[in-house]
Amino acid sequence: MSGFAPSLEILIDKLASLPSIGRKSAQRLAFHFMSMSDEEAQAFAEAVKNARTKVKRCTVCCNFSDEDVCPICRSKERDRSVICVVEDPRDVLAFERTHEYPGLYHVLHGVISPMNDINPEDICIKELIARLSGDEVKEVIMATNPTVEGEATSMYISKLIKPLGVKVSRLAYGVPVGADLEYADEFTLIRAMEGRKDI
Amino acid sequence: MSGFAPSLEILIDKLASLPSIGRKSAQRLAFHFMSMSDEEAQAFAEAVKNARTKVKRCTVCCNFSDEDVCPICRSKERDRSVICVVEDPRDVLAFERTHEYPGLYHVLHGVISPMNDINPEDICIKELIARLSGDEVKEVIMATNPTVEGEATSMYISKLIKPLGVKVSRLAYGVPVGADLEYADEFTLIRAMEGRKDI
Repeated sequence: MSGFAPSLEILIDKLASLPSIGRKSAQRLAFHFMSMSDEEAQAFAEAVKNARTKVKRCTVCCNFSDEDVCPICRSKERDRSVICVVEDPRDVLAFERTHEYPGLYHVLHGVISPMNDINPEDICIKELIARLSGDEVKEVIMATNPTVEGEATSMYISKLIKPLGVKVSRLAYGVPVGADLEYADEFTLIRAMEGRKDI
Repeated sequence: MSGFAPSLEILIDKLASLPSIGRKSAQRLAFHFMSMSDEEAQAFAEAVKNARTKVKRCTVCCNFSDEDVCPICRSKERDRSVICVVEDPRDVLAFERTHEYPGLYHVLHGVISPMNDINPEDICIKELIARLSGDEVKEVIMATNPTVEGEATSMYISKLIKPLGVKVSRLAYGVPVGADLEYADEFTLIRAMEGRKDI
């Protein structure tokens, strides 16, 4: 015998193929599934399938949604004149947790990265441009991650938007609230200096 | 909006309910599922279901198996006179990796633990006793974990077996091969001293 029962081996292989799950964790998880009731295991399998089949991209903002248009894009209470552009659906949640941002979002689902063969047409840029055709949107806030690729994507998109007469801004750089200056990297400190404000 | 799309939230909840997977990891995993092809997601869901429905306990040794009798119990090459009793299917694999143990196994699927309301009838003890009714088995090697509960289970079972005229032994205690004595705990050192051998 080289290992566990074949069906169990298949499950362990599948689990071990998930990000940040090693062989040992996959075994532990597989054994957890074995100790579940049939109903629980069934419900788990259904959840995986449903997430794949029911969840689609909002036809407006490209965020994940169970419906054609997501609750934020449908909401009558949001400020429709401003769109915050993020890389990932998780970033939407991060902003929503602040309970401060009143506008809409646009999810790019990635950043332009020629090294990884991700070109402008591979992320949701054209969907964003399409949203700017009317007069409704006055400002687009670029909120890509402060990485080289995030910045480059932000620059690329802003060059497409400016000719349309829509204001483009980006998140402020600076020291994170509550951080210890001693441990801040020099680029962050330089940006924080550049962006200093009178008090 | 309080969170992600409902179907995605359900998947994240299911993933977060697995052992050693927190909310953040569950989100990362769920997003990995979203980036899978439909076929991959389907195959994953099937693997979970199959592991639950196809894998059963070997009717002889209680190890997990896709068949009624597992390959080890069916094998003509194993020494059928000795049974190594372990707590968990993973322990079988640990012994198999040594390529040294020629006999059969018996998987208890747990240890007696009154604190956790696990009694002798909750683990596969009666199945072990049933295997000793003929004359075939000459020795039972107790290989439960060297914990208080593992020891107690081992003692309990040995008391049941001895009247049947079958020899009962247990794994040797001692310092692990390659270990640093400086970091060995006192109980291990005491056991290693007690079990010392002439060289």
